[in-house]
Amino acid sequence: MHPHTPRIGIIGSGAIGGFYGLMLARAGFDVHFLLRSEYEVVREQGVTVESAVHGNLQIKVQAYASAADMPPCDWLLVGAKATSNDQLAPLIVQAAAPGAKVVLLQNGLGVEEQLRPALRSDMHLLGGLCFICVNRQAPGVVRHQALGAVNLGYHSGPASDGGAALVNEGVGLFRAAGIDSQAMPDLAQARWQKLVWNVPYNGLSVLLGASTTPLMADSHARALIQALMAEVVQGAAACGHVLPEGYAEHLFQVTERMPDYWPSMYHDHVHKRPLELQAIYAEPLAQARAAGCRLPRMEMLYQALAFIDRGAQPR
Amino acid sequence: MHPHTPRIGIIGSGAIGGFYGLMLARAGFDVHFLLRSEYEVVREQGVTVESAVHGNLQIKVQAYASAADMPPCDWLLVGAKATSNDQLAPLIVQAAAPGAKVVLLQNGLGVEEQLRPALRSDMHLLGGLCFICVNRQAPGVVRHQALGAVNLGYHSGPASDGGAALVNEGVGLFRAAGIDSQAMPDLAQARWQKLVWNVPYNGLSVLLGASTTPLMADSHARALIQALMAEVVQGAAACGHVLPEGYAEHLFQVTERMPDYWPSMYHDHVHKRPLELQAIYAEPLAQARAAGCRLPRMEMLYQALAFIDRGAQPR
Repeated sequence: MHPHTPRIGIIGSGAIGGFYGLMLARAGFDVHFLLRSEYEVVREQGVTVESAVHGNLQIKVQAYASAADMPPCDWLLVGAKATSNDQLAPLIVQAAAPGAKVVLLQNGLGVEEQLRPALRSDMHLLGGLCFICVNRQAPGVVRHQALGAVNLGYHSGPASDGGAALVNEGVGLFRAAGIDSQAMPDLAQARWQKLVWNVPYNGLSVLLGASTTPLMADSHARALIQALMAEVVQGAAACGHVLPEGYAEHLFQVTERMPDYWPSMYHDHVHKRPLELQAIYAEPLAQARAAGCRLPRMEMLYQALAFIDRGAQPR
Repeated sequence: MHPHTPRIGIIGSGAIGGFYGLMLARAGFDVHFLLRSEYEVVREQGVTVESAVHGNLQIKVQAYASAADMPPCDWLLVGAKATSNDQLAPLIVQAAAPGAKVVLLQNGLGVEEQLRPALRSDMHLLGGLCFICVNRQAPGVVRHQALGAVNLGYHSGPASDGGAALVNEGVGLFRAAGIDSQAMPDLAQARWQKLVWNVPYNGLSVLLGASTTPLMADSHARALIQALMAEVVQGAAACGHVLPEGYAEHLFQVTERMPDYWPSMYHDHVHKRPLELQAIYAEPLAQARAAGCRLPRMEMLYQALAFIDRGAQPR
């Protein structure tokens, strides 16, 4: 191992952590996986990615059941659900080398703000937005259907240049692993942009029990998706983030070309895990409302999902 | 049978036709049931109503498998789904005495307008709005949970007084059978009023797979129901029907006091019958839009239900 190779910790197994962790390890980076339920399987069998893009990949990895056993990491990639950030915070801090960079590979708004108070002041916090179709097939096994880019933006920490150098360093890591990556000068805007996809497709997959292909084949669902996208664009603008012209239409067309895909919220619903409603719906709605903007369809989708989520959780 | 007793035909079995037909027959009226799938059972066993209000009732009835076998009826009560009016129109005409009164005991807008061209010019057409919790338990067996009123309004026909006398006659029939009934001077307004209940509860029962009690117990669902009700009130006003002050809140509270109830659209969904989306959603949305009024939540509910309905139907 090259002495200056950064040490990368993957916090939270599952599809996102498994895919990017494997790609980085495969490129020769020193990657360490902190696992919970999948620890035994991954220690024995490593991580497997069944990729429609890269073929079938399987590698042995350095796996840990406890953050206390991990060496101090320079980069920590958090691919777990945003709903578990509170629980993960102490583990992230424990695994962090001085001046570590923590990257939240999560959707929605407010995730960095929620985690930041739990981190040390020497730690940097970044957000990462993943444009990828992956899901967890089995313990230690990830199915990768399409895409793969990770765009990074700096949130907070002791960087003197607004984090630009660190963001570029992170972009370089992903690119060195063969992953498309861009630096995002405005993380808040980038998070709103990603919501243009997440708000309609994640929520409707749960509400209508439908993946992308049947949704895109139905004229009523298409009109609903476009109306929801337009509301997100409107909410972003109200909050000061004017999204690029035609961005919603672009994502709509990208989805039309994608293989049939079940968004992560559908998998959470089927497995009775809590839905990421706070970050993807409640926080954006609250920010838009604070800016004087009501988004009735998105609000309705949130209310319907909150009802469903409550029914799925122990009361 | 008294010679001046009107002869009443019940077109379409099911919960509404079964309940009101039985109540009228039980009161001594000359009632004739036109049945399809339930004909054999009803001919053998009569009609049964298991009522939380009136106790268990069972009577032998005059049942027919074909409209050609029925005697000409003075009143024809149509309790079938609005989605089957096209098919029923010729049977209604066949069973109608000269100057017959046809009462559509159906929800939504546009149902009379759709049927009217198929009727003879000597026939009167009325609308009836049922405030009742009933559902079909088994062939020939209706479960009655609560309420029961039928409010009548005149739609069209050769009446010289705007139909007021005929409406009062109809109200008298129901009252003579122990059923609460009111004359409605403005049928269109009454239909909008009824939508204040049907739009939220029918649609959400399908979309969220939930009956009234769990919906009314959840804060997000309550807010959504109230927002949908407010949109219907707004749509009615845009179309020239200013509903009574506090009407939506009244229906909300009535529902809170009702026994747990699965609206009819839920039963249609479960049994893979077509949903009454045209009358309850599409037509009101179109009328509101023509009046310059957009109802985004109701539109979203319609789009979601249309997607679900399409999936349930053979393509």
